[in-house]
Amino acid sequence: MAQAAGQGLNGLSAAEAAAAIRRGALTSRALVQACLDRIAARDPVVRAWSHLDPALALAQADAADAVPLAARGPLHGVPVGIKDILYTKDMPTRFNSPHFQDHFPNIDAAAVAILRQAGAVILGKNDTVEFAVNGRRAATTNPHDPRRTPGGSSSGSAAAVADGQVPLSLGTQTGGSVIRPASYCGVWAIKPTWNAVSHEGFKVCAASFDTLGWYGRSAADLDLLAEVFGIRDDTAPDVPALDGLRLAFCATPVWPQAEAETRQAIDTAIDVLRRAGAIVETLVLPPEFDGLTAAHKIIMQAEMRSAFLPDWRALGEALYPELVGILRNESGHSHADLLAAQNLAARCRAVFDDLAAPYAAILTPSTAGIAPFGPDNTGAAVFNRIWTLLHSPCVNVPGLTGPEGLPLGITLTGPRFRDRQVLAVAARLGDALTTADNRGAM
Amino acid sequence: MAQAAGQGLNGLSAAEAAAAIRRGALTSRALVQACLDRIAARDPVVRAWSHLDPALALAQADAADAVPLAARGPLHGVPVGIKDILYTKDMPTRFNSPHFQDHFPNIDAAAVAILRQAGAVILGKNDTVEFAVNGRRAATTNPHDPRRTPGGSSSGSAAAVADGQVPLSLGTQTGGSVIRPASYCGVWAIKPTWNAVSHEGFKVCAASFDTLGWYGRSAADLDLLAEVFGIRDDTAPDVPALDGLRLAFCATPVWPQAEAETRQAIDTAIDVLRRAGAIVETLVLPPEFDGLTAAHKIIMQAEMRSAFLPDWRALGEALYPELVGILRNESGHSHADLLAAQNLAARCRAVFDDLAAPYAAILTPSTAGIAPFGPDNTGAAVFNRIWTLLHSPCVNVPGLTGPEGLPLGITLTGPRFRDRQVLAVAARLGDALTTADNRGAM
Repeated sequence: MAQAAGQGLNGLSAAEAAAAIRRGALTSRALVQACLDRIAARDPVVRAWSHLDPALALAQADAADAVPLAARGPLHGVPVGIKDILYTKDMPTRFNSPHFQDHFPNIDAAAVAILRQAGAVILGKNDTVEFAVNGRRAATTNPHDPRRTPGGSSSGSAAAVADGQVPLSLGTQTGGSVIRPASYCGVWAIKPTWNAVSHEGFKVCAASFDTLGWYGRSAADLDLLAEVFGIRDDTAPDVPALDGLRLAFCATPVWPQAEAETRQAIDTAIDVLRRAGAIVETLVLPPEFDGLTAAHKIIMQAEMRSAFLPDWRALGEALYPELVGILRNESGHSHADLLAAQNLAARCRAVFDDLAAPYAAILTPSTAGIAPFGPDNTGAAVFNRIWTLLHSPCVNVPGLTGPEGLPLGITLTGPRFRDRQVLAVAARLGDALTTADNRGAM
Repeated sequence: MAQAAGQGLNGLSAAEAAAAIRRGALTSRALVQACLDRIAARDPVVRAWSHLDPALALAQADAADAVPLAARGPLHGVPVGIKDILYTKDMPTRFNSPHFQDHFPNIDAAAVAILRQAGAVILGKNDTVEFAVNGRRAATTNPHDPRRTPGGSSSGSAAAVADGQVPLSLGTQTGGSVIRPASYCGVWAIKPTWNAVSHEGFKVCAASFDTLGWYGRSAADLDLLAEVFGIRDDTAPDVPALDGLRLAFCATPVWPQAEAETRQAIDTAIDVLRRAGAIVETLVLPPEFDGLTAAHKIIMQAEMRSAFLPDWRALGEALYPELVGILRNESGHSHADLLAAQNLAARCRAVFDDLAAPYAAILTPSTAGIAPFGPDNTGAAVFNRIWTLLHSPCVNVPGLTGPEGLPLGITLTGPRFRDRQVLAVAARLGDALTTADNRGAM
């Protein structure tokens, strides 16, 4: 079911819109125009787009509408926003960097090419934190409160979907850049298993962690794109209801950083699950998982030094100071430190797969709390990093709220390559949260 | 010291040429013209280039020659060949695929950008096996015998350096695509530690294995590029001589596939090392390493299914049959198989680092034997795959020969991120082989 974000066609979920277009009940032009109208109305406040060419979008829509019904793909005529670190052959890709304002690779990222083959309309580029790391913040504001951050680095991708400007968008996560904005903006998102979707054609940050993810209006939207990206579990999930499901809550080693609203949201989610008949146990991670946050930093910074070497050689001190510090290795990490971190990460991946296997999904926070005041503070990735490092699929389930009625997501995760299983459980949890009495517990 | 491959400037090593250009004793134009002349003379037989634009190369050379001596970079004016799966903003990138003959990404791969910043002249694109995997073979022949393969998939990159057409070239390895051609063509090559050089901007095959490597005329050439790519060990190597060094020979689980000339070459190399005063022990890998060749196949094919999904969706059965079989997963591997393979690989990486740590380097075959007759048979990667999977740095040391005087390389490897150490030992071994009485033992 679509979340209400505007009253018109722009409020449709991708799954609803795609079905209507495939059966000829809706034109892509009407849908794209509704999105463009919404953007025109809201962009002065939300600023989710770094590049938008309405004529190009409508031309794609018209081309889609000219295709016979029988030849239409699974995303036929559905507009998608693209984080502005992914290459798009017909639009610039600027990384929100002052050094790449004229950057216009004439090729599509692998993920963008797959979307086009499925019939999607590439609506425009969504603003991002510089290089999807840090430095220059996106101009984007949180659609629920323009004083607050939408989160980073996939700021525009999350905000655009949350605000009813586009039903789907692509983002990327190296720390918490897909799930954190989803939590703050109150939208569905998935960071799938690492390398389930090709990394080709976007600005690399850390090759072992960079993961393409996406935003949608419903669990069905996320599932639709998972199918388009060819993501299937070894065994197709079968989750008709929460009743009797065995889940576990995992506090993670960073639980002390959870704010009151996140503790409350977890309590509410567990309560809703239990009232629906699910069994919710507690999963305590072994002590060596305590080292994963530090390992994430060591690996990410080391891999950034190879990924950003061309930029470092070309731009040097003209890059922003935090990046310069990483490229200078001011943390003083050695290769031995990197290998110890990589070996720990690999061990914990195998251990977590086994620990999580008995459960239908693992429940854990998406963020420490609601969106902080921006724009400089884009929030902390503290609850996302270890899952990025573990390569495990994470789905942000919206529906809960914190102070001032602001959104706060819950993450469901599981073993690697159980993406569809986690999505199936997330769909049931989303339904339960939507129908529960107690959505805004605080 | 440069290997004789032509008598003119084109026979200079990169290190010699770079030093001469930096001090103003040689112009880039003279060097590039000598390479172009060599190519013109030999290309009808060797066919190492898929794209060559002499005017563009000379324009780059003239631009390099106009730079004051004090402002010249470490590769200033030195021509480099680029495997035709790496993007070059001013040349097409065709992957040797019939489906990408008009493919012209207007951006540089990260590695190419780094070369340009160091002052290199991008001479042209070297022919490759289709998509650097299999399918269409490079047109390239082995410079030592045109009936034989130069190896694959970095066929043109290896042959061009071996034939004195260019002093340096870039290749990539996912199985054995850098080291195997180096062995067959008799040139120096390194496949560094995985992700020591950015993977950005080339056709991805298997993200966990793809490794950028390079060819040169001497160990010093490889070291020069290692420095350009920012590769440094935690401790700078100190290998003044072989005398007293402790090395180990590792037969690997695939040793039964070594042909007589490879067994002889290993014996000769060990003999040369021992006569120079080195201690050569035997390193026996633990039994679980027996599974690495199978694990390599499982991981590579699974990762190819995400990397080639856009091509599969766009081209389907028009792709070549072997690739179609992989994309259809005709091997029937599950995600569980993939995870078991990844977990094994990660365990063995850590184990091998520890096993290899006490040694200055590990000696192992580069190929099963000399270059077979081509073009369909590009030789087997059987002796390279486990090192690619282990992410360990591999250097092909040329100098030995097999039947008919054809070249046969020896691989030196070591723990991850000991690239410069392995190169330093390789340089000493290369010297010893060059001065040894018994180069062509068979």
